[in-house]
Amino acid sequence: MFRTAELGRKVSKAEFEELESALRIEMVELQQTLRVADFPVILVFAGVDGAGKGESMNLLNEWLDPRWIVTRAYASTSDEEQERPEYWRFWRDLPPKGRIGQFLSCWYSTPFMEFATGAIDDVTFDERLNRVIAFEKTLADDGALILKFWMHLGKQAQKKRLKSLEKDANESWRVTAQDWKHWEMYDSFIHTAERLIARTSVPEARWTIVEGQDHRYRSLTVLCGLRDALSRHLEHRRAVAETRTRSRHGVEAVSPVIPDVGANLPTVLDTLDMTQALDKKAYRTALGTQQGRLAVLQRKAHRKGVSTVLVFEGWDAAGKGGAIRRVTRALDARQVQVIPIAAPTDEENAQHYLWRFWRQLGRAGRVTVFDRSWYGRVLVERVEGFAADDEWRRAYTEIRDFEDQLVQDGIVLCKFWLHITKDEQLARFQSREDTPYKSWKLTEEDWRNRERWDTYEQAVNEMVERTSTHTAPWTLVEANDKRFARVKVIETVANAMEKVLG
Amino acid sequence: MFRTAELGRKVSKAEFEELESALRIEMVELQQTLRVADFPVILVFAGVDGAGKGESMNLLNEWLDPRWIVTRAYASTSDEEQERPEYWRFWRDLPPKGRIGQFLSCWYSTPFMEFATGAIDDVTFDERLNRVIAFEKTLADDGALILKFWMHLGKQAQKKRLKSLEKDANESWRVTAQDWKHWEMYDSFIHTAERLIARTSVPEARWTIVEGQDHRYRSLTVLCGLRDALSRHLEHRRAVAETRTRSRHGVEAVSPVIPDVGANLPTVLDTLDMTQALDKKAYRTALGTQQGRLAVLQRKAHRKGVSTVLVFEGWDAAGKGGAIRRVTRALDARQVQVIPIAAPTDEENAQHYLWRFWRQLGRAGRVTVFDRSWYGRVLVERVEGFAADDEWRRAYTEIRDFEDQLVQDGIVLCKFWLHITKDEQLARFQSREDTPYKSWKLTEEDWRNRERWDTYEQAVNEMVERTSTHTAPWTLVEANDKRFARVKVIETVANAMEKVLG
Repeated sequence: MFRTAELGRKVSKAEFEELESALRIEMVELQQTLRVADFPVILVFAGVDGAGKGESMNLLNEWLDPRWIVTRAYASTSDEEQERPEYWRFWRDLPPKGRIGQFLSCWYSTPFMEFATGAIDDVTFDERLNRVIAFEKTLADDGALILKFWMHLGKQAQKKRLKSLEKDANESWRVTAQDWKHWEMYDSFIHTAERLIARTSVPEARWTIVEGQDHRYRSLTVLCGLRDALSRHLEHRRAVAETRTRSRHGVEAVSPVIPDVGANLPTVLDTLDMTQALDKKAYRTALGTQQGRLAVLQRKAHRKGVSTVLVFEGWDAAGKGGAIRRVTRALDARQVQVIPIAAPTDEENAQHYLWRFWRQLGRAGRVTVFDRSWYGRVLVERVEGFAADDEWRRAYTEIRDFEDQLVQDGIVLCKFWLHITKDEQLARFQSREDTPYKSWKLTEEDWRNRERWDTYEQAVNEMVERTSTHTAPWTLVEANDKRFARVKVIETVANAMEKVLG
Repeated sequence: MFRTAELGRKVSKAEFEELESALRIEMVELQQTLRVADFPVILVFAGVDGAGKGESMNLLNEWLDPRWIVTRAYASTSDEEQERPEYWRFWRDLPPKGRIGQFLSCWYSTPFMEFATGAIDDVTFDERLNRVIAFEKTLADDGALILKFWMHLGKQAQKKRLKSLEKDANESWRVTAQDWKHWEMYDSFIHTAERLIARTSVPEARWTIVEGQDHRYRSLTVLCGLRDALSRHLEHRRAVAETRTRSRHGVEAVSPVIPDVGANLPTVLDTLDMTQALDKKAYRTALGTQQGRLAVLQRKAHRKGVSTVLVFEGWDAAGKGGAIRRVTRALDARQVQVIPIAAPTDEENAQHYLWRFWRQLGRAGRVTVFDRSWYGRVLVERVEGFAADDEWRRAYTEIRDFEDQLVQDGIVLCKFWLHITKDEQLARFQSREDTPYKSWKLTEEDWRNRERWDTYEQAVNEMVERTSTHTAPWTLVEANDKRFARVKVIETVANAMEKVLG
């Protein structure tokens, strides 16, 4: 795989200088165009030590305007990072639309080192790479331009390079004992690299192998690679935007994205026994018992550093707020955070839609409650046409992958759909209208959503079908009776925590 | 001071229940009003262990809608917190406008414990409290409602309370060995508390001493205290907003805030020798030398964990971008972040204006470059009337305090004003107009700003006068000659780093 990167290709100083000034202007102009584009650029640098990874990043910072570039290199994890799933640190550093992020020792680093040193086997290595592929696909699907540069040096060339760096008084600090240790593992590294590159070179995020020996040659390869890909991508995104404008249903959509014709099929919600209820006395006892259990379990979870994520979805007026308050009441306010999900802020809008949820994940031992969640993508955004067809369709996979990362990290995850019947909703809307201190809860939008009940119901059905997995099942809550619903919610949370905490 | 909080005041269950339902509705309605108000509420809980601090926070979470409350309790600092000035952790947790933040063991905690245990003396204690006062004043001046509750128990009452908690199987976890250790230090704690409360009970952030023995009494005190203060504050802010609307100069201000009459006085900028220049050869040599120094110093700084903050202000077209690139070129891209300051995002607009700068402070050993900065408050915001008179006037003090915290934390801080003459600016504007790949740099706004040159010059003069301190001096850079300016900037940074790093 690397034979073509050991040809000793060179660019003379004269050749380089001839190209330089025009190329610099081109790059600066492209960056200006990018600044108002609707996607970020993600550059990944990896490869052999001494092959010019850091130098390439510095060069980009020098040739482009560094104000619109985020550069990140990852060393050991901070404790705030350790307390979240592995990819949290990468999500939080992602560049917003219009900017460039350059990444070194990033999501490839741990799987690479672990496989190269024999700490993990083939199967685990492939699993880790699947995670990488899914991550990059998620970003690329959202429009990100991802370019990955593998900087290569042959074994002897690397040795020569390290030796020459060591001799240079200004550069010798770059060479550490670890570099030499890595050099001794050269063959194992190359074997790992071949496998990694072959596996993760996918259409939406290709590797470019760069011969790293000659700094002018390698600089031109990186710069021209970025220039060409960025030009093409700007063109491509313009075309996508045009198509979308033509086909997309806006806020004023004439017809919902889901045709009403299919709306009379039975859904998973039809299977619920909506007559379930608790009388006041049974409620008080059950609520007390379950809140007591929850309080004890959360103290244990806090001690052990086990985090909990609760997701609340449901019809308007289904009682999400009330259920959430019954949960939080059992918990110490210091260890719980309720995140209300409404319209995204502009910082959130400049990122992948999952970014706003990643950023809210709490530290170890905390409970994070989402009042509405990432499922908005396949519910309101789908039904109202805020997300394009391909966007909400691929969201099922993205969400499964996101939740899988939470669960694999040891987080207790519960997802609730609070279900009420259409009649019950009407009764609650009317009661809200009549109660002064509740009337703020009822908006025009609630009435509008109600008109699309059947369409929403189909969306809910598909959501449950596609995202209720063994590791992250949905709990459908029969919520016509608030008391029954609240007890069911708290009991479910307590059971889930107990299962993990033992 | 605490005698009135040891009276054994009680509220009976019947009395409490009589008040409860009306009070709950009142609180929920107030919270709804707050949600669209232009200020946050900051609640501080402190006091004797067992006096109901945590319980009060839980109660608020229960009575109010927890979705609009942020609850924070501080234990040991995470490594990401340790690498920034002490108050970074509090700034990042501040609630945005419209929300409530409840804080426990927060900015009072360290000074309190250190003085109570004898680790710091009177003078240092007072200095620390001055920092607290300045912090709260900064927030209150911006509109925040700050309420501080000191939960009190007499010595015997505390002993009784700890014992009774210990006996309760559900509550015994609340009592730790540390609580008993603290109880033994009761007298010293009370002495410290009296001093702390007396010193930090200021009009904009008063302490309320709450007798903590009876949970109904203490709950009512906290809840009614919040209700009354919040009602008053909502009223007060409405009045302020009205006055401001009447007196404030908007974007279309008829006359600038600084009257042009004073605009002909000589300013500190007039004292600069604008003829200073470097020829190409001298520039290359000097630039190389200074960039070399800087590169070596930054490696050392990175190893030692010493951070650097660089602030660039100056006339439009004065060469800020070019100077910044000459600085970053000498640095490893992985350790530097350039922060361009333009219009705030909506998340930033929902906070104190300094919040957006606090959030950008990098981890230990990094260089953070601000391309424009917090000085916008006393420059563009002042001149264009975006900040009210009192807002920019108090900004001088707020900025001095902010910078003082950076320097005290060991951060190397350099502030540059890049000065060019009015003629030179015109020449550069015209050249930008004529150069295709530079024309994006020139906007209508640049021409508009130019018309107010004299007004800006007065603002710059006052800025330097008020914020060039011994610990955080301004460097005025004669920038008619770009080469001279760039070398002066880099040399100044290198000198400043050398002074700290030795």
